[in-house]
Amino acid sequence: MIVRDTPRRRDVFLILKGSVVPRILPNIAAATLWALAVLLIDRYLIAMPHVSIAVMGVFGLSLSLFLGFRNNAAYDRWWEARKLWGKMVADLRSLAQELRIFTGKGADEAFVLDHILAFHHLHRAQLRGDRVEEDVSRWVGAETAQALLRDGNPPDAALRAVADRLREMAEGGRIDGWGQRALAERLACFPAAQAGNERLMTTPLPFVYSLLVWRATYLYCGLLPFALLDSAGWFEPLVAAVVAYVFFGLAEVTHELEHPFRDQPNGIPLRAMCRVMEIAVCHALGRPAPPRLEPVDHVLD
Amino acid sequence: MIVRDTPRRRDVFLILKGSVVPRILPNIAAATLWALAVLLIDRYLIAMPHVSIAVMGVFGLSLSLFLGFRNNAAYDRWWEARKLWGKMVADLRSLAQELRIFTGKGADEAFVLDHILAFHHLHRAQLRGDRVEEDVSRWVGAETAQALLRDGNPPDAALRAVADRLREMAEGGRIDGWGQRALAERLACFPAAQAGNERLMTTPLPFVYSLLVWRATYLYCGLLPFALLDSAGWFEPLVAAVVAYVFFGLAEVTHELEHPFRDQPNGIPLRAMCRVMEIAVCHALGRPAPPRLEPVDHVLD
Amino acid sequence: MIVRDTPRRRDVFLILKGSVVPRILPNIAAATLWALAVLLIDRYLIAMPHVSIAVMGVFGLSLSLFLGFRNNAAYDRWWEARKLWGKMVADLRSLAQELRIFTGKGADEAFVLDHILAFHHLHRAQLRGDRVEEDVSRWVGAETAQALLRDGNPPDAALRAVADRLREMAEGGRIDGWGQRALAERLACFPAAQAGNERLMTTPLPFVYSLLVWRATYLYCGLLPFALLDSAGWFEPLVAAVVAYVFFGLAEVTHELEHPFRDQPNGIPLRAMCRVMEIAVCHALGRPAPPRLEPVDHVLD
Amino acid sequence: MIVRDTPRRRDVFLILKGSVVPRILPNIAAATLWALAVLLIDRYLIAMPHVSIAVMGVFGLSLSLFLGFRNNAAYDRWWEARKLWGKMVADLRSLAQELRIFTGKGADEAFVLDHILAFHHLHRAQLRGDRVEEDVSRWVGAETAQALLRDGNPPDAALRAVADRLREMAEGGRIDGWGQRALAERLACFPAAQAGNERLMTTPLPFVYSLLVWRATYLYCGLLPFALLDSAGWFEPLVAAVVAYVFFGLAEVTHELEHPFRDQPNGIPLRAMCRVMEIAVCHALGRPAPPRLEPVDHVLD
Amino acid sequence: MIVRDTPRRRDVFLILKGSVVPRILPNIAAATLWALAVLLIDRYLIAMPHVSIAVMGVFGLSLSLFLGFRNNAAYDRWWEARKLWGKMVADLRSLAQELRIFTGKGADEAFVLDHILAFHHLHRAQLRGDRVEEDVSRWVGAETAQALLRDGNPPDAALRAVADRLREMAEGGRIDGWGQRALAERLACFPAAQAGNERLMTTPLPFVYSLLVWRATYLYCGLLPFALLDSAGWFEPLVAAVVAYVFFGLAEVTHELEHPFRDQPNGIPLRAMCRVMEIAVCHALGRPAPPRLEPVDHVLD
Repeated sequence: MIVRDTPRRRDVFLILKGSVVPRILPNIAAATLWALAVLLIDRYLIAMPHVSIAVMGVFGLSLSLFLGFRNNAAYDRWWEARKLWGKMVADLRSLAQELRIFTGKGADEAFVLDHILAFHHLHRAQLRGDRVEEDVSRWVGAETAQALLRDGNPPDAALRAVADRLREMAEGGRIDGWGQRALAERLACFPAAQAGNERLMTTPLPFVYSLLVWRATYLYCGLLPFALLDSAGWFEPLVAAVVAYVFFGLAEVTHELEHPFRDQPNGIPLRAMCRVMEIAVCHALGRPAPPRLEPVDHVLD
Repeated sequence: MIVRDTPRRRDVFLILKGSVVPRILPNIAAATLWALAVLLIDRYLIAMPHVSIAVMGVFGLSLSLFLGFRNNAAYDRWWEARKLWGKMVADLRSLAQELRIFTGKGADEAFVLDHILAFHHLHRAQLRGDRVEEDVSRWVGAETAQALLRDGNPPDAALRAVADRLREMAEGGRIDGWGQRALAERLACFPAAQAGNERLMTTPLPFVYSLLVWRATYLYCGLLPFALLDSAGWFEPLVAAVVAYVFFGLAEVTHELEHPFRDQPNGIPLRAMCRVMEIAVCHALGRPAPPRLEPVDHVLD
Repeated sequence: MIVRDTPRRRDVFLILKGSVVPRILPNIAAATLWALAVLLIDRYLIAMPHVSIAVMGVFGLSLSLFLGFRNNAAYDRWWEARKLWGKMVADLRSLAQELRIFTGKGADEAFVLDHILAFHHLHRAQLRGDRVEEDVSRWVGAETAQALLRDGNPPDAALRAVADRLREMAEGGRIDGWGQRALAERLACFPAAQAGNERLMTTPLPFVYSLLVWRATYLYCGLLPFALLDSAGWFEPLVAAVVAYVFFGLAEVTHELEHPFRDQPNGIPLRAMCRVMEIAVCHALGRPAPPRLEPVDHVLD
Repeated sequence: MIVRDTPRRRDVFLILKGSVVPRILPNIAAATLWALAVLLIDRYLIAMPHVSIAVMGVFGLSLSLFLGFRNNAAYDRWWEARKLWGKMVADLRSLAQELRIFTGKGADEAFVLDHILAFHHLHRAQLRGDRVEEDVSRWVGAETAQALLRDGNPPDAALRAVADRLREMAEGGRIDGWGQRALAERLACFPAAQAGNERLMTTPLPFVYSLLVWRATYLYCGLLPFALLDSAGWFEPLVAAVVAYVFFGLAEVTHELEHPFRDQPNGIPLRAMCRVMEIAVCHALGRPAPPRLEPVDHVLD
Repeated sequence: MIVRDTPRRRDVFLILKGSVVPRILPNIAAATLWALAVLLIDRYLIAMPHVSIAVMGVFGLSLSLFLGFRNNAAYDRWWEARKLWGKMVADLRSLAQELRIFTGKGADEAFVLDHILAFHHLHRAQLRGDRVEEDVSRWVGAETAQALLRDGNPPDAALRAVADRLREMAEGGRIDGWGQRALAERLACFPAAQAGNERLMTTPLPFVYSLLVWRATYLYCGLLPFALLDSAGWFEPLVAAVVAYVFFGLAEVTHELEHPFRDQPNGIPLRAMCRVMEIAVCHALGRPAPPRLEPVDHVLD
């Protein structure tokens, strides 16, 4: 995630980090050159057929409809991903609170919280392919970490270990029915968030939209120069460049936000969020807490 | 569901799988030929009445309004269907967790989880007409599968069997009040999701919208060539083709997303999701898990 | 609710059932004749003042804003009504499940479920004015049905009878605290859904919107012919008819969806949904189930 | 709230009750006269600078953006207010149900329900400044009513009395743990709804939007006549009047819906809703119920 | 938050407090001067290339798309922040209610409520950097306040103290299982709201949108004067100023609402909301309540 103050007035055109310009530069350049070619041929070689700019207006309206829809849908996915991880932080803190209320300090509390941390790191690996062996080992020990990673569904395995422990605690009388029920309810929040994240990861926006949007954008930029012959004069290449910037820029932005868990500048900062959880657990257990992760070159990982 | 990376630049016009072009080709062809005919008659036979392109702009705005609304509503239905199935995965995992906490390992746990799998396969049959006898038999045995399928509401019958078992467990003292209540609460999630899916299946978008959208699209494409005579020149057939592609394409896409459970390329991959649940149950019960279903020719079923 | 496959290409203009055309035909006819009159007077009698079509574009944008908003709001109301009834189906099934878990088979189960069916029929009468005495009698007997119908708030009376029964069951030891609490929680879902439905029934969209939309639509269609003089030529009456169809059609559709419980083709099929509940209860109690209601002439009641 | 059937065709321009026309008449008149003045000066005195109507289109698009946003936000506030009051009705009915299940008939039930009615009347006074002493006295007696009204937060005081009673009932053994918990959970719904209503009352839409919208509307209507010189001819004053009606009308409507609890025609009918609750309590307690409040001159208070 | 009645007609252009005009005055001035320069050069020096206003219409549509999206997203953030704080007020009142029901009056009640107040002040410090030592000391004493502020996560430390107290109360028999569970559930609401607020604080809208919006606005205003040469005549500088006001104004407003917790006129009034909670606690404990905070110069802090 890019963490950066909104640029001052004079900087707004200079920033490249976090901008989509580098990635769509080929498209902008092609659109500009194509517009220039159409203009020069029309003026100096042979008259090209002209299209009324009003036609592009009708077409542009439909394109705006697509881009607007895709933009909203992609942003909603990104924001839902952030909400799910925020809820996981809240549930972890509430779990620590409830352990404190129903079991008190001790080995059980530490076992549960450490395994929940392992769950989050393993879930992060599942979502983004991060290597997390070291992170997991730090909280549950190298041996358990190995065992968890060998499982078919490692984050699930961590939760199963917690469930077994809760049963053991109940059977050993270290927790009463109230606590067993409260902790079981809280524990159910984690598979729910996990399933939500898996949904966002495995189910992108319907493929057919991507096709429609990209095709319509290409067609629009290909047709535009013929419409600008009458209406923009020598500004034609500039207008074509600006329009290409706006439409391809939006298509590119939404493509990135659509996949909130990919390892890219605008992705959700999963490592930083796992660290927030580690700090919460350390506070709950009275251990020294590691520092928050800070953005590197304006990017929080 | 189509699982495919967004196409590289040069491929974007070549992809047919997942595109709506094949299905709306007749409409595009008709619109193009109609535009060509109007243009040729106007130029070489008799002057046709011209319509200002601004009129089409006013009309196009209304059409965009319809298409935009229908698009949002259809996508919301599709996404809600996916959310409901994702929630069912989460509830299944939470149920496994709660069985582990409140009953421990044993025949009860296996009975409940196997019947929940049967419920999901039977519910899939209800939604999409899949033949599921084999899938159901694998988990609850051929005899029970037959009995369930003979019931008036097979998925409901599977849940009734689980409810009876929970009562039996409580009466036999194999579960206490806490567990009985926790499992009963979790079990109530499945009829809720089932009712949601039934709602999406039986209640399409109001029929009157479909009529309005298709009629308005036809009228628009029929009138457009007269507006392009002045404003598009020899580009007229191309513009007509592009506009037909955009408007009919969007109408077609929304028609497909509106019915998320139909057996079509952009449908929700119910078989793959049932497999995800089977894997979760196998992990919970310590059985060897079947592999995830993979997309065949970019389509996940 | 109209249940019908989206029409084939050639049928799209022929369907009348479920179309709003019959109801707005006077408006379409008036708009067409008015446009024709303006055109003929301008051509053959005296020059009328012309209005630029761009003025209509500005005006049309505002009108689209109104119609778009009203359309979204009306559809949301319709969809919320359908969701509430779908939730009532789910809650009824969950209630049957919980009775099975906490009380087992017997007279208590039948009493509660039958009275919940009575509640739904009585609630339907409250929403849509249906005569339901016969339907209620079938489940709770003629005498109780009479008593319920004499009450100030009949659906509420049915729920009060269930609540009294739950207390009796608890006092008689036929249900423990867990069950009493679980069933009381479930029972609270029905007044919540009832209040939601009452809200949709008694609180339409603010009246001032209806006025604004209808007035603006009339003004727009009245002014349009003067703008079409320059821009549509002899197509003027056709364009006026199409625009009237689109705008009055949308205004009429939203008016219908705004009142989801009225007895009209696009209303929520309350009788069919009550039947779904009856079937669920029959399955739960092991009684023979009546058949689902089928659409008559494409209309499900 | 205005309760009125959508007008018949010929009445649509005649209705004043519930229309915003009276309040924005000065604005419409000013816009019309200004347009007339510009037109007359341009025709008969000196040529005024002309502005292209397309410029107004660009400007109008932005204005539509503002008005559309403000309209959605204001309607959401109004609808949320109605939903919160609807939920309070449902919670009151559920509370009556739960009292019936967990405590049975008697003085405790009446005490709790009467005080909840007092809470709602007092909350209404808090939201809308109604004088409610008489209404409160009718349910809890004049003495208690006086005491409640003397409190710093009268509705809260009524809930505190209920909470104290619940504790007393538990200590006196007149309610067990299950009931205490169920009733405490239900009781927590009322402060939640109260806080929601307070939010809507104390936090209007950000002030800066109101400024932007009004200013932009004034500028638009001031500039419009210069754009209509070329494009509307002698229709200019009429077009200016219609545009002023649409834009100022929408601004005015959203201003009213933004404050759903003010005492105005489109406000939420708090008195009628409190009466609905009174009727529900009377039914629950077997008392004779007062009649529903009916609209007076189409306005429900 | 600015608390102010919507201005009367004649005042609407005079208000500066709460307006964004002062902050975007440089942009408006620059746009106006640039338009004037282009106009004068074109008229008196050399002909500038003209751009059709229709081109700006196409461009303006995309810009509206961006601004509309950003506006909705920013307002949703602001409103969600307000909702979260409103929910915290409700949860505090419900907690007071539940303490009253399950523990009765006494030291435990005061301890819990005072620490929850400390939590809210400390959370406010976390969100907005306020100095809260004095406010915290007033409720939990100077010593405890110092200890809390020294913690790595002060608001969390306040909640941990409450959790410890609940355990102590349960072990000392001063609260039974029902109460322990009810209070633990309520206590879990505060970390949830805290995590929601942290999300809004640490995760702004994706940076790439800010770039796109500002860049597109600058490009639009830079290009506009060439389009106004033909279409606005001597109104050109005025139109340019109005357009700059509308577009930069909206960009600036959304920038402010995007950060609801910053110390700015349109921010959420955290101090006033903490005071509302203090008053609620004082009422619950029977202490004299401090007065509500009132707006100073129309700004509520």
